[in-house]
Amino acid sequence: MTFPVVGMVGGGQLARMTHEAGIPLGIRFKLLSDTPQDSAAQVVSDVVIGDYRDLDTLRDFARGCDVITFDHEHVPTEHLRALEADGIPVRPGPDALVHAQDKGVMRARLDAIGVPCPRHRIVSDPGDVAAFAAELGGREGTGTDGFPVVLKTVRGGYDGKGVWVVDSVEEAAEPFRAGVPVLAEEKVDFVRELAANVVRSPHGQAVAYPVVESQQVNGVCDTVIAPAPDLDEALALKAEEMALRIAKELDVVGHLAVELFHTRDGRILVNELAMRPHNSGHWTQDGAITSQFANHVRAVLDLPLGDPRPRAKWTVMVNVLGGDYPDMYSAYLHCMARDPQLKIHMYGKDVKPGRKVGHVNTYGDDLDDVLERARHAAGYLRGTITE
Amino acid sequence: MTFPVVGMVGGGQLARMTHEAGIPLGIRFKLLSDTPQDSAAQVVSDVVIGDYRDLDTLRDFARGCDVITFDHEHVPTEHLRALEADGIPVRPGPDALVHAQDKGVMRARLDAIGVPCPRHRIVSDPGDVAAFAAELGGREGTGTDGFPVVLKTVRGGYDGKGVWVVDSVEEAAEPFRAGVPVLAEEKVDFVRELAANVVRSPHGQAVAYPVVESQQVNGVCDTVIAPAPDLDEALALKAEEMALRIAKELDVVGHLAVELFHTRDGRILVNELAMRPHNSGHWTQDGAITSQFANHVRAVLDLPLGDPRPRAKWTVMVNVLGGDYPDMYSAYLHCMARDPQLKIHMYGKDVKPGRKVGHVNTYGDDLDDVLERARHAAGYLRGTITE
Repeated sequence: MTFPVVGMVGGGQLARMTHEAGIPLGIRFKLLSDTPQDSAAQVVSDVVIGDYRDLDTLRDFARGCDVITFDHEHVPTEHLRALEADGIPVRPGPDALVHAQDKGVMRARLDAIGVPCPRHRIVSDPGDVAAFAAELGGREGTGTDGFPVVLKTVRGGYDGKGVWVVDSVEEAAEPFRAGVPVLAEEKVDFVRELAANVVRSPHGQAVAYPVVESQQVNGVCDTVIAPAPDLDEALALKAEEMALRIAKELDVVGHLAVELFHTRDGRILVNELAMRPHNSGHWTQDGAITSQFANHVRAVLDLPLGDPRPRAKWTVMVNVLGGDYPDMYSAYLHCMARDPQLKIHMYGKDVKPGRKVGHVNTYGDDLDDVLERARHAAGYLRGTITE
Repeated sequence: MTFPVVGMVGGGQLARMTHEAGIPLGIRFKLLSDTPQDSAAQVVSDVVIGDYRDLDTLRDFARGCDVITFDHEHVPTEHLRALEADGIPVRPGPDALVHAQDKGVMRARLDAIGVPCPRHRIVSDPGDVAAFAAELGGREGTGTDGFPVVLKTVRGGYDGKGVWVVDSVEEAAEPFRAGVPVLAEEKVDFVRELAANVVRSPHGQAVAYPVVESQQVNGVCDTVIAPAPDLDEALALKAEEMALRIAKELDVVGHLAVELFHTRDGRILVNELAMRPHNSGHWTQDGAITSQFANHVRAVLDLPLGDPRPRAKWTVMVNVLGGDYPDMYSAYLHCMARDPQLKIHMYGKDVKPGRKVGHVNTYGDDLDDVLERARHAAGYLRGTITE
């Protein structure tokens, strides 16, 4: 057998769905997972249980892998460099991945290549925040003092964690308590959030998925609509080109998600980068010719990429969050009987309130119908809709 | 967690692809496999290595499973009855499955419910064959002695194995040497083979996929075209109704494939039955709203079934057989670069000449194009096309 072994660090749902997408390719998939109960560890044959923060564990795991890729961005950069020095291809590589690990590095790099971002500054204390705010003062949506301002720890945040929106210098003290560097950003006056998903291979081949609208609830992705409704064609093209340029300039290999603010005055600004399959690309499993997971696998193996075009006029993804009702399986009866076209994707996770435990995809020609079906199913699975 | 455990007996590619289809449902999948190298065992987490012909092994395996289903039809009927007596749901159940295990039982039952089959008779020796042939004599395509006649062992045949086409009473000796019962059938004058695939749940819900054309080469399925081109709508409906009726009358649970002869005089006759996902349904992975594998899982769990309708005007599946060239992975470069819409499904099997090691699916609006793409890819992977 000459089929390669793809080593995936991290046992979450992204690894689970990447494994699923890799099965048809006949590749071998090896998983480094924190516990045997992790989402991906439940469905993968070749699982190593260990701590990705430990270099020896990583090295043992990487032995026998043809390439290493990731379910998350938390592997220390120096460990990735050590693996590369051992001769193991790491994709995306540490020099790319650092931009998804460190928001300060990311902002500096995007500035350098001329990609529009919210105004921002690394700040050391509340005084810095006040000074930064003062410079922003008087914009629409801010007081004369420039507040509110967004503060983010440069590392470790996700799904709204590690992010604060502060209305005064007094409130700005909290983010500094952990002693990690903090990035201050203007609070962008946006009408919606978009995401541009692209995939790039070591060869430099790249494909762009249609730009999607991503709707957040309480800082967590709730709904993704593909393609983004009523998006000016030139702006969509600009967003795709921007994502492709970031992928190229940062030498990203694999999937890159560029989260964007669509501002009230019609601009697009980069919010965050993720270098792995991303929640804003889950719709591709049922809505695109090639899913983000299949293309991520193809990219890290330096195989030619698959067609990213949509298969339906509209595809909608809605996340399924844990509710008060732990038995999601019994909800299948209603959901599947109501909508025989519904696509359920569950992650094998125990239900905890607010935890992402799955998502649903729907597609069709009528956006209102497609949205209603996805929202109903997600709400019913969560237990917030009972009829 | 209330998610059920589906126990799959047999580690072949059908189990592999059923596991793949079960991952999004969040169910637990447990596999009984002959060896750890089997196609499905490579990609499933929870694998028991053992012999399905041993009742104790089956019983141990079934403990902790909510339902048992199958990758093949070879589990002894009495073992299935024993599992049922233990209280384990077996789907399809032994009373249904016997019709896919024993061609003599199948023919008798289809006769009884009035489903058209080739003329047939259980025969004990070459003399019986000659007498059967004489009754068929004078039809188009046969000599005055009624030969050729098709002889089949009633159990254990597949992919052309256990089947003989004999031209004389002298040639009819061979099939009897194994000492197993033999079924004699008229050699049907058919213009093509069709397959009607349906899925049925314990509740009695059933869905029918569009009838497909199945092209065999040397007795092995080579190409499947969905839907069957130029098939009279009334005949297609008749084939679907026939398959649904067989599923109901035989109390099939799960996927049922009904292989059909489309005769020169415009009739359809049942050739074989298979009660599991089937090669003639592999196109559904990329060509239908719900794949045969997903619907098989839903059926054995008594969940509402998914929509079986096609997503494309035409979908073509071509099997990838092993050739002289063992390195199929390197052929990915050409195949994927040539056709970014190509869907490759490999089974993780070592390449042996003539062995089914995977298949490809293509879809689109132009049948000639879709056929050419699938055939080129399968031929290139096999090594019979080199440019």
